[in-house]
Amino acid sequence: MTQFGELWERSFRDIGLEAGMSAMVDAGIGSDDIDALYVGNMSAGMFIEQEHVGALIADYVGLSDSHIPSVRVEAGGASGALALRQGYLSVASGVNDIVVVGGAEKMTDVADTAAEDILSKSADQEWEVFFGATLTSLYAMMARRHMHEFGTTAEQLAQVSVLNHTHGSMNPKAHFRNRVKLEHVLGSPIAASPLRTLECAPVSDGGAAVILASMDKAEEFKGDRPLVKISGSAQASDTISLHARSEFTSLTSTREAARKAYKRAGLTAKDIDVAEINDNFTIAALMALEALGFAEKGKSGPWIEEGNGALDGSLPINPSGGLKARGQPPGAVGIAQAAEIVSQLRGECGDRNVKDPRVGLTHNLGGTGATSIVHIFEVV
Amino acid sequence: MTQFGELWERSFRDIGLEAGMSAMVDAGIGSDDIDALYVGNMSAGMFIEQEHVGALIADYVGLSDSHIPSVRVEAGGASGALALRQGYLSVASGVNDIVVVGGAEKMTDVADTAAEDILSKSADQEWEVFFGATLTSLYAMMARRHMHEFGTTAEQLAQVSVLNHTHGSMNPKAHFRNRVKLEHVLGSPIAASPLRTLECAPVSDGGAAVILASMDKAEEFKGDRPLVKISGSAQASDTISLHARSEFTSLTSTREAARKAYKRAGLTAKDIDVAEINDNFTIAALMALEALGFAEKGKSGPWIEEGNGALDGSLPINPSGGLKARGQPPGAVGIAQAAEIVSQLRGECGDRNVKDPRVGLTHNLGGTGATSIVHIFEVV
Repeated sequence: MTQFGELWERSFRDIGLEAGMSAMVDAGIGSDDIDALYVGNMSAGMFIEQEHVGALIADYVGLSDSHIPSVRVEAGGASGALALRQGYLSVASGVNDIVVVGGAEKMTDVADTAAEDILSKSADQEWEVFFGATLTSLYAMMARRHMHEFGTTAEQLAQVSVLNHTHGSMNPKAHFRNRVKLEHVLGSPIAASPLRTLECAPVSDGGAAVILASMDKAEEFKGDRPLVKISGSAQASDTISLHARSEFTSLTSTREAARKAYKRAGLTAKDIDVAEINDNFTIAALMALEALGFAEKGKSGPWIEEGNGALDGSLPINPSGGLKARGQPPGAVGIAQAAEIVSQLRGECGDRNVKDPRVGLTHNLGGTGATSIVHIFEVV
Repeated sequence: MTQFGELWERSFRDIGLEAGMSAMVDAGIGSDDIDALYVGNMSAGMFIEQEHVGALIADYVGLSDSHIPSVRVEAGGASGALALRQGYLSVASGVNDIVVVGGAEKMTDVADTAAEDILSKSADQEWEVFFGATLTSLYAMMARRHMHEFGTTAEQLAQVSVLNHTHGSMNPKAHFRNRVKLEHVLGSPIAASPLRTLECAPVSDGGAAVILASMDKAEEFKGDRPLVKISGSAQASDTISLHARSEFTSLTSTREAARKAYKRAGLTAKDIDVAEINDNFTIAALMALEALGFAEKGKSGPWIEEGNGALDGSLPINPSGGLKARGQPPGAVGIAQAAEIVSQLRGECGDRNVKDPRVGLTHNLGGTGATSIVHIFEVV
């Protein structure tokens, strides 16, 4: 992954180029080895007035000479994991041997308020956004309801941010490397009550890329590093607007995607050693912990408060710093999560490496949960 | 496919819903039969301020209850065929049994000039569009150079538009059903010299959807209608900007995609009985005829002038009316082309049906040719 942050001096294509080339160098492959490119990007159209970014990135990483197919996919904040999943399916099915999956977003070429407007386009424009709702205010309603139903506290929500910043402080590529205390989060300005500014993931630029290969090909290129395979990949949908759901304290699409991913991998939530989850807002992380089966329904608040998600906890969450501290370029998030988990499983994360993890999980979310994508990774 | 045109009374989701539901009814399948949804859309972000349209369409066609995965893909004007190809690969590889592939675009909620701006975002924003180039002016340069190198005439270019309008007049769902004569085209205002207004495909709303199934499943659902299979599918890339190419009188990505598609189908250009090609501008159609192997390099002008592309010609081109007359909602074009070819092969096109076609081809293009996608369809 590239540095995440406010990358004033770098354009979208520079970021995509750096991510793609770095992944190719890391894997020791050349452009002749690549069968296809998958690009995750949420909204280059609105952020930088550029569509057709699949072809653009293929061109800039030097793949246009070989005319390989390039596929841009989009599912709001889950665009990165969607690219990962499409690339994975193309290899698992035998269509391709080696693919590059990259994701990038350049958010800071527009004003912060415009960036939030654009992020909100992953909710329902006609029935939510047009009437003034933003992604933040929709999640705020979910948070308020979760507090009402389950007694979740402001402190428990804030603890998610504290955890992410603690981990992010150890990640040199994170957007924010400052640690925060509970009182900082609880003292930060209200974004949409009960959510405070330090509970909302930032507007970030950044890119990430991974190389996927069939097991045979991966053996060829792995060198002396542990081989990591994707043993489960699943995607599920839900209604795009909150009002159409029977309840909004559950991420039903996440629960469905997790159920399928666990089934395909032959594993359960208990087998996961480390997870990267979608904390675009603190409440999203709490609901994800429940939907993924890590915490019981309604008990995610205490679960976090007890320190289960710490690097030395029962299930380390977001060692990268998560969306809150590592940063949130929507097209890149799902792929950066995968890069973090692979690095964790290889033991390449230094101070923030979880102790000897064997199985990792990534969870990426679009909108208020209309799309969820879950991947499970295992050391072979 | 839905009616194409200026659909003032219908929203993007209405159009997507109609296309998806019509395809399901036509195929006799219900939502329980569907494994996944693929959605082609170029720029809902800029046209209607809505991203995450994969989830949106899944929701509105009633698939959110079953939580099936929905994948939105984008490749400029080739977004529709890209969805078709991703859906096809998912079935051909055995991942899915039955998928819905839909495409839609709602272009008329913005001004005409804004629509051309947005279409131009499929070219290179930083190195072409920022400096004033539009998709029209880039194609105009290609046309001028083709005229210079090969003696292609304004009349030959205009003949492409005459052909499309003739065919479109027989298509009840076409955006334009008026016939035009050569003098109308040549007398229409200059858009970007040498291209005239009647040589440029319009700004259209519209949607289209097809159901893809494994051969086993297709046998189950086909009823008493001929079964049509996809025997070739290929995609190729080129540089996103014109200036980076060694020449711009060739659509190299189209040539590469066609070569691969013919190879997979075990066919050559001579085996094609009917084709839907990407005439976003008249020059694009001429260059496509050459890249697809229908006309010799530099000879597409005379080829069209001699009437080869007519319904009773040696190779009928765009019986639907093409992008020029049927209309050009970018996300839907590639899928409407497939729907037309399938209807042609089934003999369901009435007056505009080519005589007993057995093999059809679709050609869909993004930008100035940075993405090309070719599909070959055969009656089983």
